[in-house]
Amino acid sequence: MKKYRLEAFSDGVIAILITIMVLNMEVPSGVGADKLLPVIPVFLTYVLSFIYLAIYWSNHHHLFQAAIGVNRPILWANLNLLFWLSLIPFATGWMGENHFAPGPAALYGMVLLLSAISYWILRQLVLASLTSQARLLHPIGRNWKGWLATVLYLPAIALSFLWEWVSLALYVLTALLWLIPDRRLELALADREAGC
Amino acid sequence: MKKYRLEAFSDGVIAILITIMVLNMEVPSGVGADKLLPVIPVFLTYVLSFIYLAIYWSNHHHLFQAAIGVNRPILWANLNLLFWLSLIPFATGWMGENHFAPGPAALYGMVLLLSAISYWILRQLVLASLTSQARLLHPIGRNWKGWLATVLYLPAIALSFLWEWVSLALYVLTALLWLIPDRRLELALADREAGC
Amino acid sequence: MKKYRLEAFSDGVIAILITIMVLNMEVPSGVGADKLLPVIPVFLTYVLSFIYLAIYWSNHHHLFQAAIGVNRPILWANLNLLFWLSLIPFATGWMGENHFAPGPAALYGMVLLLSAISYWILRQLVLASLTSQARLLHPIGRNWKGWLATVLYLPAIALSFLWEWVSLALYVLTALLWLIPDRRLELALADREAGC
Amino acid sequence: MKKYRLEAFSDGVIAILITIMVLNMEVPSGVGADKLLPVIPVFLTYVLSFIYLAIYWSNHHHLFQAAIGVNRPILWANLNLLFWLSLIPFATGWMGENHFAPGPAALYGMVLLLSAISYWILRQLVLASLTSQARLLHPIGRNWKGWLATVLYLPAIALSFLWEWVSLALYVLTALLWLIPDRRLELALADREAGC
Repeated sequence: MKKYRLEAFSDGVIAILITIMVLNMEVPSGVGADKLLPVIPVFLTYVLSFIYLAIYWSNHHHLFQAAIGVNRPILWANLNLLFWLSLIPFATGWMGENHFAPGPAALYGMVLLLSAISYWILRQLVLASLTSQARLLHPIGRNWKGWLATVLYLPAIALSFLWEWVSLALYVLTALLWLIPDRRLELALADREAGC
Repeated sequence: MKKYRLEAFSDGVIAILITIMVLNMEVPSGVGADKLLPVIPVFLTYVLSFIYLAIYWSNHHHLFQAAIGVNRPILWANLNLLFWLSLIPFATGWMGENHFAPGPAALYGMVLLLSAISYWILRQLVLASLTSQARLLHPIGRNWKGWLATVLYLPAIALSFLWEWVSLALYVLTALLWLIPDRRLELALADREAGC
Repeated sequence: MKKYRLEAFSDGVIAILITIMVLNMEVPSGVGADKLLPVIPVFLTYVLSFIYLAIYWSNHHHLFQAAIGVNRPILWANLNLLFWLSLIPFATGWMGENHFAPGPAALYGMVLLLSAISYWILRQLVLASLTSQARLLHPIGRNWKGWLATVLYLPAIALSFLWEWVSLALYVLTALLWLIPDRRLELALADREAGC
Repeated sequence: MKKYRLEAFSDGVIAILITIMVLNMEVPSGVGADKLLPVIPVFLTYVLSFIYLAIYWSNHHHLFQAAIGVNRPILWANLNLLFWLSLIPFATGWMGENHFAPGPAALYGMVLLLSAISYWILRQLVLASLTSQARLLHPIGRNWKGWLATVLYLPAIALSFLWEWVSLALYVLTALLWLIPDRRLELALADREAGC
């Protein structure tokens, strides 16, 4: 089964998710710079969620460059990931409009956690579909970033009811963590550029 | 006629349909967990419709991998399918906001029924465009899932006026039915992977 | 210059235009079948505009299969076409919500007219970019459908202020006219399938 | 790393941005031609922003035809560009609804300025990824349009608080400036059409 339609469909969904989050920023009715003030927390959550979706798109992009083909479990694991990502605009909007209040901040963390778990499942299935030789280049056991992100999301959700700013800081930290490149995958890809 | 633009256009439409359904979930104005309660039925119908659209995308994906090219009837049968799928967000929104009330549940079933019929027409046209050799591998007469889905939608629409939860259960059941893989198509495809 | 990005971008814009028109159909707040009544004119204009955008997508698809490459004038003529098409949802919404009243019906006709002229310009530029041999297969002088559509839109716009239903009938008639296949282009394409 | 997914994702985002700006034009509730009057400034800002996004798409299209592959800095510089472009609908809506008032006109200029800078960074990274031979064909030092646009945006932002129509005229002028073709890039591309 060819992989280009799965890539194109995922690109479409993520592109739309990024863009409809902008619709959460309501155009102010007045003119002055002070009219922009209530938009600022919505804008900041938009920036955070844009970065998260950009990270997922970028990681997805890398992961499927490594993939040789698509089987049924990969196809549905990908749809599962897209489902959880599709809840990010809702969670972002709720958090942004309520200035990072405990409830919305916890929901945001849960959506991020479930997205991370879904990505991890997808990653395992793609790695499992590779030949044993290709898998050697992507040692699953050393996927420390995925584990660390999950470990950070859990206290972030719990702490959102006590100190919501701590959980927000943890969301930012995890995003920064993912921005660090995944060297192994890039190196492995460099070897099989000729294929595809 | 090449098939990649038909695939790309369908991918785009289905990706957007999935995503704009999220806009039906209005961001609550308050903060507490109880503010999420009215969103729950909208969320559950979103999950159901997401699964339906994911099934259509997945089946479409399989069907057009089997296709060799696109002729005019296939192109318009595909646009017809996309038309009925495009009504799913409206029907979903109406059903979700009214907690599965009879009228909206019947409309939802009718949109699903017409989508299923449109997909069946598209399937027949794609199969008809294959060579007789390729068609042997896709015996039309054994398309039991398409028939069963249609048979289930009809009582679901009728029963929605008496016991709306029964019709909802039938919609869920039909979705689960489609999630079972269509082995024949996948096997047949495995033979001609080299093509495209 | 490669043509696939122009195709992909146009596919994206048209797919989104089709889909956001669905957002014009507001989810009714009540449950009964009578609550659907005010949605019916919006639905009917949606059907008409869906067919128009489907025709444009289909014609665009055929036209660019004939194209060998993309030059700067073609690129901007295509963006010009997409601009006028992008106004169809607005014109559709205004007409649908006002039950085909004179003003909105005239605006709808003007958007269709300008889209038709833009498509005609794009068509001429694509044909001009073909070799003289390929152009022989697409005789420009026999583009009767483009001319007839333009001739029909003009009275439709004028008559919308007297008998709006006549102009609506003309819009439907023109859509049906375009649904008739353009044999010449398809035949010409059959010859150069190997290319692309 | 292949470039087609970066292109497809960027196409998707820009296509959606163009299209959701249409949603800023609210369908008037009445029927007469005078009901369209309040829509006119929103329409004019839509035209301006459509042209800007079309220019970015067109330049992006040219730039990546010159690109051989995509590395991590290019991928993130592209996402950075898409982020600033994604703010154009918000800035457009605010400016359009307030008839080019000082504050919104300044914000619009700042979004355009940051988009221009982001494009410039992306351009530098793509040029840096080319071989020294290919770079000779794209002399960075002669990128006069990028510099002139930046030079024009700065006074446009400042002047928006005194004479907002002057800054609007500068935005229009800069758009017209970009519409002039970038001959060098096109010529350079003509040489390596066979590749990709």
